[in-house]
Amino acid sequence: MKNILIIGCGLLGSSLVRGISKKKIAKKIFIFEKSKSNISKIKKLKLPGIITKSLENGVINSDLIIFCTPMSEYKKLILKINNFISPKKLITDIGSSKIESSKIIAKFLKKGIHWTRSHPITGSEVSGPEHGKYNMFEGKWCVLIKDKNTNSKHLKLINSFWKKLGSKTVIMNSEKHDKIFSITSHLPHLVAYNLVKSAQDFEKILKINLIKYSAGGLRDFSRIAASNEIMWRDIFFDNKTHIIKAIDLFIKNLRFFKKDIKNKKNKSILKKLSKTKRVRKQIIKLKQDIDKPDFGRN
Amino acid sequence: MKNILIIGCGLLGSSLVRGISKKKIAKKIFIFEKSKSNISKIKKLKLPGIITKSLENGVINSDLIIFCTPMSEYKKLILKINNFISPKKLITDIGSSKIESSKIIAKFLKKGIHWTRSHPITGSEVSGPEHGKYNMFEGKWCVLIKDKNTNSKHLKLINSFWKKLGSKTVIMNSEKHDKIFSITSHLPHLVAYNLVKSAQDFEKILKINLIKYSAGGLRDFSRIAASNEIMWRDIFFDNKTHIIKAIDLFIKNLRFFKKDIKNKKNKSILKKLSKTKRVRKQIIKLKQDIDKPDFGRN
Repeated sequence: MKNILIIGCGLLGSSLVRGISKKKIAKKIFIFEKSKSNISKIKKLKLPGIITKSLENGVINSDLIIFCTPMSEYKKLILKINNFISPKKLITDIGSSKIESSKIIAKFLKKGIHWTRSHPITGSEVSGPEHGKYNMFEGKWCVLIKDKNTNSKHLKLINSFWKKLGSKTVIMNSEKHDKIFSITSHLPHLVAYNLVKSAQDFEKILKINLIKYSAGGLRDFSRIAASNEIMWRDIFFDNKTHIIKAIDLFIKNLRFFKKDIKNKKNKSILKKLSKTKRVRKQIIKLKQDIDKPDFGRN
Repeated sequence: MKNILIIGCGLLGSSLVRGISKKKIAKKIFIFEKSKSNISKIKKLKLPGIITKSLENGVINSDLIIFCTPMSEYKKLILKINNFISPKKLITDIGSSKIESSKIIAKFLKKGIHWTRSHPITGSEVSGPEHGKYNMFEGKWCVLIKDKNTNSKHLKLINSFWKKLGSKTVIMNSEKHDKIFSITSHLPHLVAYNLVKSAQDFEKILKINLIKYSAGGLRDFSRIAASNEIMWRDIFFDNKTHIIKAIDLFIKNLRFFKKDIKNKKNKSILKKLSKTKRVRKQIIKLKQDIDKPDFGRN
């Protein structure tokens, strides 16, 4: 791979720029970024990429194009690149849900052009190029999508790209991907947002400053609920079918919990509270989180 | 204060032993602990306290008695100490909810004896004396309860005790306490347990190993859902009135969220997702959490 174009240079885009440069994966890295504020940050940070104001130049001069914008930007960008894209170019993205956005891509991308979809399982509650890290993808899962129309040759090359960055890769179809992440990522974010929203509502109802006492649990949720709102709106809308199923099961289970509490069902509640405990151990064993109590933050 | 008795020497009890010793708050620290496994850990750790097998000796020889057991143990212990307790003794606890447990205390504790209630806002998902820390209470809130029957003199002395440990103290009644913590602590724990339970259910339904992909959000919740099940059962049962109200508002808000997602209500959802963001900033400003992205864990 000679040159790579990063479209959208926020947290993950800038991490790609840093990682690709550090691992010497490309000769040149081009950056296409529409936000003036981000451009001035990128310049200040002296990120190892060439800022291009022309999307056409970026695309023409690159072998791999990576979309790192919110998913709601894809359509507009696709309609532009259709004018100068060629079938040899590798295209991928880092979007967190796949079924609906794949429909947009299939509908608007010029026929004969292949877009291979990726989803690196990483990120943070902070946004912007100043928070990016060269090792953002190291040791993390990257899911690659193989659907009916996926080009096998491109898939192989994109897979090797993520491996060079240090990611562990796994291949699955859009359906399976969207189901899994509706549970392990989208529902947790929704629940965190909803919990913080409910705390805000209670603050108004009770007329008490609650937030100052958030060290007892709420603070953990506030981190996730501080994530980028555009990105998360796009994910919620894009994966709505599976997210709605997840919400329904969550509410059903919460109702059972409420009943157990109301009727002081000792055995039933202890079973739940001890069974969920095991998941933490599993997560630590699978190296999906650090093994220090309290995330090691104190 | 000369001597202090710690009843129940787990995570917080052992942290008190360490903190009291480090700050030289007492001459002698007595430990009453019923679990053999904990006793052998305490000996191995060489905690700076005297293990007493006789609750009577511990009580008689101490000026301050601190209950650090799950709240469901209070009644049994009260019936025992009633035989040798005297009105001059200071008694407190670290229980996380207050209204119902205060009723137990009022009902069973010998007349004329004062129990002043405390709630230090600290802890962790891990249990046992091996995880205690001398600075567990430093810079943390400790809520002291002032109800109709609270003895002002004792309250003052207990207040000064927590301040010596480095806590910031605040006084409120049981009602206000239980309302606040139903939102900032009890509901978050319940929601975390419920989210992990729902993920486990989905794993069965979908027959897919989800947990390995938990870095996208679920892992944060799994920490809280690994908390001590006995302690949390007690809290859920004890503060059930307020927790049920909190669950109801939470479900109501989640339903609105679902509707917004279903109907792609752009403005409404963006408003929610950006408003909740502010809470994180508030929490960090109030020093209720560290200011590093991702809890500084990577």
